[in-house]
Formats: sequence, structure tokens, C-alpha cells
Amino acid sequence: MATAGKVIRCKAAVAWEPNKPLVMEEIEVAPPQANEVRIKIVATGVCHTDLYHLFEGMHKDGFPVVLGHEGAGIVESVGTGVTEFQPGDKVIPLFISQCRECRFCKSPKTNQCVKGWLTCKGKKLLQFLGTSTFSEYTVLNQIAVAKIDPAAPLDKVCLLGCGVCTGFGAAVNTAKVEAGSTCAVFGLGAVGLAAVMGCKAAGAQRIIAVDINPEKFEKAKVFGATEFVNPKDHSRPISQVLAEMTDGGVDFSLECVGNVGVMRSALESCVKGWGVSVLVGWTDLQDFAARPIQLIAGRTWKGTLFGGFKGKDGVPEMVKAYLDKKVKLDEFITHNMTLDQVNDAVKLMKNGQWCLKYFMLSSIFYLRVYGIYLK
Amino acid sequence: MATAGKVIRCKAAVAWEPNKPLVMEEIEVAPPQANEVRIKIVATGVCHTDLYHLFEGMHKDGFPVVLGHEGAGIVESVGTGVTEFQPGDKVIPLFISQCRECRFCKSPKTNQCVKGWLTCKGKKLLQFLGTSTFSEYTVLNQIAVAKIDPAAPLDKVCLLGCGVCTGFGAAVNTAKVEAGSTCAVFGLGAVGLAAVMGCKAAGAQRIIAVDINPEKFEKAKVFGATEFVNPKDHSRPISQVLAEMTDGGVDFSLECVGNVGVMRSALESCVKGWGVSVLVGWTDLQDFAARPIQLIAGRTWKGTLFGGFKGKDGVPEMVKAYLDKKVKLDEFITHNMTLDQVNDAVKLMKNGQWCLKYFMLSSIFYLRVYGIYLK
Repeated sequence: MATAGKVIRCKAAVAWEPNKPLVMEEIEVAPPQANEVRIKIVATGVCHTDLYHLFEGMHKDGFPVVLGHEGAGIVESVGTGVTEFQPGDKVIPLFISQCRECRFCKSPKTNQCVKGWLTCKGKKLLQFLGTSTFSEYTVLNQIAVAKIDPAAPLDKVCLLGCGVCTGFGAAVNTAKVEAGSTCAVFGLGAVGLAAVMGCKAAGAQRIIAVDINPEKFEKAKVFGATEFVNPKDHSRPISQVLAEMTDGGVDFSLECVGNVGVMRSALESCVKGWGVSVLVGWTDLQDFAARPIQLIAGRTWKGTLFGGFKGKDGVPEMVKAYLDKKVKLDEFITHNMTLDQVNDAVKLMKNGQWCLKYFMLSSIFYLRVYGIYLK
Repeated sequence: MATAGKVIRCKAAVAWEPNKPLVMEEIEVAPPQANEVRIKIVATGVCHTDLYHLFEGMHKDGFPVVLGHEGAGIVESVGTGVTEFQPGDKVIPLFISQCRECRFCKSPKTNQCVKGWLTCKGKKLLQFLGTSTFSEYTVLNQIAVAKIDPAAPLDKVCLLGCGVCTGFGAAVNTAKVEAGSTCAVFGLGAVGLAAVMGCKAAGAQRIIAVDINPEKFEKAKVFGATEFVNPKDHSRPISQVLAEMTDGGVDFSLECVGNVGVMRSALESCVKGWGVSVLVGWTDLQDFAARPIQLIAGRTWKGTLFGGFKGKDGVPEMVKAYLDKKVKLDEFITHNMTLDQVNDAVKLMKNGQWCLKYFMLSSIFYLRVYGIYLK
């Protein structure tokens, strides 16, 4: 392309400091260096983790930064040493790389490449989770880019860059939900709904959706939930309610909120002997905790990052599953907005979360911003 | 036997109230009712869980009680409906039953029979963990008795009634330690040493024994430990020390102390991606806790009760393994005492624990009392 080898000036939403609106700025995106790929971002979702960085984590040295990590785009140009990609390829940026060479990449047990989360590259603007998709262009190392089917609609499959893979994979890859089992999914944001979809894909017989917002049940049904429990309807602990519904507890539970109290409830909702509970939601401000007997009685506590998917392998497969109509994406989308409206999107999500006093995230979790087109 | 069908008067060590010495009393042991087995206890170990009940748990309604749950004996008589046992059989009482009929017994995933821990049977004296082996005679439901090889020396295999199976099984059945892996065992009491032995049996390449008492390393070596780390020798967190020794952390860690701080350290000592940490030590007075990232980064937290062994199946196999010299038992024994000396045994263990200000149990954990013979 005509821009290859040159600095690109483009629009991006810059977070200058914590707890403040993002500012639309013209930024400079350098040409890709060796092993790097420059991507034109076509669509991106807004994930709660973006807001977590801005409003909750608020690490001082994490600013200024371009947020966004759930994107999809088209390769604009590549640096030396890049043979896997060429301009025009449709791609999804990966916030966990897959170098294919480290002992983690070589193990079938994990997706946690030793290169981990790519962080600051010494540029003035930090790349959030190594991706920074709230920008018209971004640059990534080729180990953090997945090439996808050219037929894929980027304004849909961008959701596979984080939330949907995270929830779906939590059920399928991490919990390893079994056919005929009983599952409970706590929190019906995009991640939770994707977890419900994963439980269904794995053949679960009962999928109990738990949220304090009963309006979400209709949506959860679309993805496969068979029952709905609103903790607000009960004076007893939710784990007790679920135990009574399921003769002692569920086989698998997935915490898709990022609240340490819910993490405990999700574990305690599992049946003794073999119950598996998975942390899917993100928080790192507090400890999660439980009584030792909960594990000693035979429960297992796990966690998942990006649903256990190795990005280069898993994301193209999930894109194919969407194209083959085996995975839903369109149903997650509640809002379509432009990059200029990013602060409206942030506000919607933030208010959605904060207006609920209890532990569940609002439906805003499956809000998605798209339309970050070239000027 | 001449005593069949009659009440047996015999000696037992009665715990009348928390925090007080046990009192040698003459007790009455009723004839076995339907599905019950009356057992002459020949040898019993003292386990920290006995002391936990007496000095730490101290539940008011748990007294008076006859403690002891790590015993071996000979069937004296059986109640109606019992066909599996006959007088003269060598047996080990099980504090987790195996009814073979409930969904837990039918699942290969767990040993947690729905009959659970047998508790008070409406007698004046409570049976501790359903076994009460600090008595010359005890009565159990047949689902809580394992028949063992007649060649087995009862004063050795009694250790398979709790501690050794718990530690060994924690490594082999629960953690599922893999050949060539790196393991860390926290706490080198009987359970920890058995865990070391289990790691070795599973083919672990490195077995790092962690204890604040360096005198235990020689003993740990006997069971297979390859390295020793004393947390007191380091100012950094032990998890950091282990991470440096192992290129990021161990594959498997086993907490054999029953201290929530050590539980956290054991989890944090695991490698990201696939590290598995197992709670083996018992406590239920406090929560265990960690930061969510510890699990989200791919670690798994599990727990074990009786090492995951289904008692009727597993205990006879472990007895056979001992007779075949594949499992060590003699090396665990540090003290031989009579039932009359039970308070000396308790004192030894209690002081052993309490004289250590840090988190490890003393070697007294593998103290064993035996010699509970018929008068």
C-alpha cells in the first residue's frame, strides 16, 4: 500500500490519565519493524477490562495509553522477517501471543505463551494489552496476530479477540464441561453468555444462568441457558439454592463477573467430589477466598485467560465455527457506534455496571463499539 | 468368639471435654447391629486431626468422644446382613465409607461416598470420624471397613488408615503427578513424607522438600526427596525461591501442613500455565486465599481427603504394596507406646507442634501409638 514504510497519522482514543474521558487525538503509528505487522483496525469491541484499567486498576505507570483489545482488522504492511502475513490479510490482534517456540506454546496444557502479555514498547503511548484497538492503526509483533478467513465479517468476528473466546473456551477448554452435566454460569455479560454457549456446545444437560438482572434471561436462553436464578429472589446463599436445585451442587460453575464474592459462591455451588469452578471474570484488587473444606471435599478451582485458546490456532477455528453457524456472534451486539463516540460507549458500560448495587455486571457487558474506519 | 452377641467392657481413652487430658475409662461396646462389624483394635496411630479436634476445633457438641482414626484390628463379630467379613479377618477402619451404591462411589472421580463421615450414632460416647480407634474395641458399619491381607502386620499397616494414604494418594490420585515433573512438598510430617513417597512413585524427577526443620531432610531423602528448602534460610517469599530454582515454578505442589498461609505459598510456587497445587493438610478455622491472577494464569487448586482413595478398594492395594515393598511404612514410626500412655503421645505431638513458631508441623506428626491389646 501507499502507506507502507511511512509513519501513519491517524485517529485514536487516548487515555491520558485514570478516571478521565478518553481524548480523540491524532497519533503517529510507526512502520512495522522486524517481525511486526501494522494493522488497520476495522472494528473493535469495548470490554470491561478496558474500563477496569481506566477506573479500577488505575496503575499510574499505565498511562497515557490507547485502550481496546477486542479488535479485527486488515494487514496494512509488514516488517522484515514476516512471511505469515501480507497486506490485505484479515486478522485479529491477540493479547496473548503464540510464539510456537516456548515450553508453554509447546505444551497442550496451556495457552500462556512465555512472551505473555506484550507491554510497553518504549513508545510514548502505551499499547493496552499489547493491542490498542481504539485506534485506526496499531502495530503488533507477528506472534500476536491471528490470520482469519477472508470471508469473515470483521465487525462481528472482532468479538473473538477477547470476550466470546474467553467465555466459550472457559467452558470447553478449561472447565472441560462434559455431556449430560449440570452447569451454572454466574454473570450474563458477553463473557457469561459465551460461557453459556460453550456449556451448550459441550453437551451440558442443564445450564443454570445466574444474574441479578432478570431481563437477561431471554438473552441467555438464546445461547442455551435452561434455567435462571436471580440471587435477589432468595434470602439464602445462592450456593444453597443451587445445591437444592441440583441434588448437592452443579458439576461445573463459571464465574464471569470478576468479583471475589461471586468467585466464592461459584465454588461453593459445585457438588463435592468432582465439582469444577473456573474464574473467568477479571479482578486483581482483592483476594478470593474459601474454607479449605471446599477443596478438600473434592472440588477443583481453576482459572482461564482467553478461554485457554492458543490464539493463532484457536481464533481462526472460532471464526470458522461462526461462519459455519456453530457459534453465535451477532446476538451479542447491542450497540453500534463510531470511534468518535467512544466516550459514550464507556459511559454506557460504566453506568451499566455501577447502577447495579449487587455483584453482576449489566447487559452493557455485551455492548460493542464498531466502525473505526479509515478517515 | 465367646464375646459375640454380648456387650464388651474394655478400655478406651475418653476425651470428656476440649483442651483436657484424655481419661482412661472402662467403656461398653455394644454388639454389632445389622450391617455392623465389631473390631478389636490392635494398633493405632495418633494423627494431628485427633489433636485438632481436642485443641483447635473444640466444637462443644463433639464431646465426650473417643478419638483415634488411624487404626488396624481384627474382626471380633459381625451383625446380621454382613457377609463380607467374618471373625478373625484383619481390617482397617475407614473414616470415609465406600457403600459402592451412591453416585459418588460409582464415579471414578472421587472417593467421597455420600455416607460421608460417619458421625454420632446416638451413643453416649461419640465416635471420632466414625472410627474411635483409641479403644480396645469399636463398632463400624460394614461400608466403613476394609478387609486386608492376613499377612499384614497390624502395627505397621494401621498407618494406612489415614496419614500415609492421604499423602501418597494426594500425589498419585489427586495431583496426578507426572513422570519427569518437578514437585514441592510443604511440611514433612507423616503426610508430607508420604506425599514425597507418592511423588517418587509417580516418577517425579525433582522432589523439593520444604520445612523449617532441617533435621527432617534426612528422613525426607529416605522417601525420595531430591532437594530441601528451609524457608528460614531466605528473606524472600518461598514461592520466589522455588520459582528461581525451577525456571518459574514447580509442576505440582502439595500442602501437608494445614496452614492457610502455606496453602497460598504452595499455590504461588507453581508454574503458570499448568501448575497444580493440592491442599492435603487439614484446617477449617480460617479461609485460604490468593489473588485471582494466580488461577487465571493457569494454575489449578485442588484438595484431597484420604488421598482420593476409595477405602475398600484402595487400602487393601496399599497394604499389598507395602507387603511387596513398594511402599514404605516402618520408616514413619518414631515412637511405640501403649494405650495407657496416650496422653504422653498427645503431649509429644502437641509440644512438637507448638514449639515451632512457624508453620510446619514437627516430626511428631509421624509419631505413632500402638499396643492397644486386649486386657
